[in-house]
Amino acid sequence: MRQRPPLTPLIAALPSTVPFVGPEAQERDRGRAFRARIGANESSFGPSPRVIERMAGIARDMWMYCDPDNFDLKQAVARHLGVGAENVVVGEGIDGLLSLVARMYVAPGDAVVTSLGAYPTFNFHIAGVGGRLVAVPYEDDKESLDRLLAAAVRDKAPLVYLSNPDNPMGSWWEAAEIIRFIEALPETTMLVLDEAYGELGPASALPPIDVSRPNVIRMRTFSKAYGLAGIRCGYAVADAQVIRDFEKIRNHYGVSRMAQTAGVEALADQAYLESVVARVSAGRQRIAGIAETNGLNPLPSATNFVTIDCGNDGAFALKVLQGLLARDIFIRKPMVPVLDRCIRVSVGLDHELDILAEEFPGALATARGN
Amino acid sequence: MRQRPPLTPLIAALPSTVPFVGPEAQERDRGRAFRARIGANESSFGPSPRVIERMAGIARDMWMYCDPDNFDLKQAVARHLGVGAENVVVGEGIDGLLSLVARMYVAPGDAVVTSLGAYPTFNFHIAGVGGRLVAVPYEDDKESLDRLLAAAVRDKAPLVYLSNPDNPMGSWWEAAEIIRFIEALPETTMLVLDEAYGELGPASALPPIDVSRPNVIRMRTFSKAYGLAGIRCGYAVADAQVIRDFEKIRNHYGVSRMAQTAGVEALADQAYLESVVARVSAGRQRIAGIAETNGLNPLPSATNFVTIDCGNDGAFALKVLQGLLARDIFIRKPMVPVLDRCIRVSVGLDHELDILAEEFPGALATARGN
Repeated sequence: MRQRPPLTPLIAALPSTVPFVGPEAQERDRGRAFRARIGANESSFGPSPRVIERMAGIARDMWMYCDPDNFDLKQAVARHLGVGAENVVVGEGIDGLLSLVARMYVAPGDAVVTSLGAYPTFNFHIAGVGGRLVAVPYEDDKESLDRLLAAAVRDKAPLVYLSNPDNPMGSWWEAAEIIRFIEALPETTMLVLDEAYGELGPASALPPIDVSRPNVIRMRTFSKAYGLAGIRCGYAVADAQVIRDFEKIRNHYGVSRMAQTAGVEALADQAYLESVVARVSAGRQRIAGIAETNGLNPLPSATNFVTIDCGNDGAFALKVLQGLLARDIFIRKPMVPVLDRCIRVSVGLDHELDILAEEFPGALATARGN
Repeated sequence: MRQRPPLTPLIAALPSTVPFVGPEAQERDRGRAFRARIGANESSFGPSPRVIERMAGIARDMWMYCDPDNFDLKQAVARHLGVGAENVVVGEGIDGLLSLVARMYVAPGDAVVTSLGAYPTFNFHIAGVGGRLVAVPYEDDKESLDRLLAAAVRDKAPLVYLSNPDNPMGSWWEAAEIIRFIEALPETTMLVLDEAYGELGPASALPPIDVSRPNVIRMRTFSKAYGLAGIRCGYAVADAQVIRDFEKIRNHYGVSRMAQTAGVEALADQAYLESVVARVSAGRQRIAGIAETNGLNPLPSATNFVTIDCGNDGAFALKVLQGLLARDIFIRKPMVPVLDRCIRVSVGLDHELDILAEEFPGALATARGN
């Protein structure tokens, strides 16, 4: 019996279960493909045709390493947001940036505040650095700014996570409320403000970008409205010193050449973005209508999905989800109590929502045991 | 004056200088492009035409998240190497995997053994977890297996890094020597055996893959022979438990959908790989010939570059490098004494090596002050 090189105590204590199950894994298990892929808040409308053409055109160039500075993309983001390039860092999606932020601000045992039922990948990365997660309940299906603030103060948290608009509930706060929250936070608490869905909700939900405030990191992504989830590219905007601190540990060659170029091209086609936003808005209305037709309550959404209150407990909503999966419709649902009475349906293409409309009554009847 | 959220003590202690300067940054500084890009050990021959076509064909699909299991690519790698898929983990290049290995095995203050002048990105990631780097000198321009072993034993290192074939010297050990080294390592020491250049040297340098040994992680990449440096994809092969341990902290959505598909397609075109290996071999001979024509000594190489001994000290070799840069030829050089007497030239296209041949005498004359 050989010895095994020991993991560090911190890593050894982590669970070794695989935390994320993609639709591909479900398809492999089921042995057949989904007919509607409307569960991962992807943009079924795809990236801009300009972006597609550009990606195809540079495939040959992939023999060259990516620019470790992400220079062109940082310039483009900076122009787009009216900040300096020194206020921008690019990462392998928001997920990659969250992993860095966890390492930068959270020492083992530190309290980190989030909402109960919010982004699991954030929690995963906090666990990975030995942080102690303090999760406060939602209030009326919104992340509770009051509870987040109280917990951050009480537990002297170095880090707080807030998504606005929110996943998985689709809810949002107006900018004035977010600003009030930021101003009340201790100066020693860093806020990660995850705005992955920022382009898809009302503009009034996004505070003006203020890089003079050293305890806020805004995060955005090309995965949602820009239709580039598979390319892995997101960015963070913050005070220049905070951005410089990312240099200490980030994987400088982590964001592919394909992603950097796609990001630049995506930002350049704002007309396409506007068309997606309009189609997402129409899709949300359609999903809400399907829910209502079936006697269920769709929650208001500022994202590319609609969370549907199934009007019963978590076990019932789970049955509805399973009924839809069995009918080859990929959706997901919140799993934390109170929120778990809901299912979450991403805006898909018309033919996918047709399938949803067609199959919803059957799934609901099965769940009700009719 | 506002307070600033403090970094963790570990991160606060790290230097905030930008550690990696790409050729793009040099081109921006110079205000003009290089005529020959032969400094980053990229494959100027590009990826397989099949891979290029496939990447172009799936650009539209990038709205879908990547498979977090990397299922298809793991299967393809497993088949290619004759191991199980449970012995494979895929990452954002070897760089991304090195970052994870550092976090898995190195606690603050732990000694980590490498060679003085070996891969800087490994050192960067060790610093990022507070590891104490123990760097042993090369011996006759090869990484010294004896010194690495002695240091690992003496300092009870949880982690040792060895690249074979080696960067930046291009040297290599035969498999029998590597196996002897592995067998002599303490069971509590994990070896990262970086085989990024494995496809480009003699097959006799690669030990058979043995996943029953729990203290060896072999790393390979699509960045070198497969010509996909810009797509960011590498993999590690190890004991199944070691692979499961990566699940605890890896960024599950880190490897793009484009990269996963490109990797599968690249492995499927071994005929193209063989043609690249032949062209690289011819290119090495050509570079060696250019060095010899100029009275310098090219070192033997099992990689896609040739390290050239400029026959003097580091200051002189630096002047040769600067002379070539000034003539719009991008190359690099080792910076650590003894090795620093050399410059390192990657195999490029014929027209790039023509430029090298043409400009080398001038650069050398300038360096000599003639």
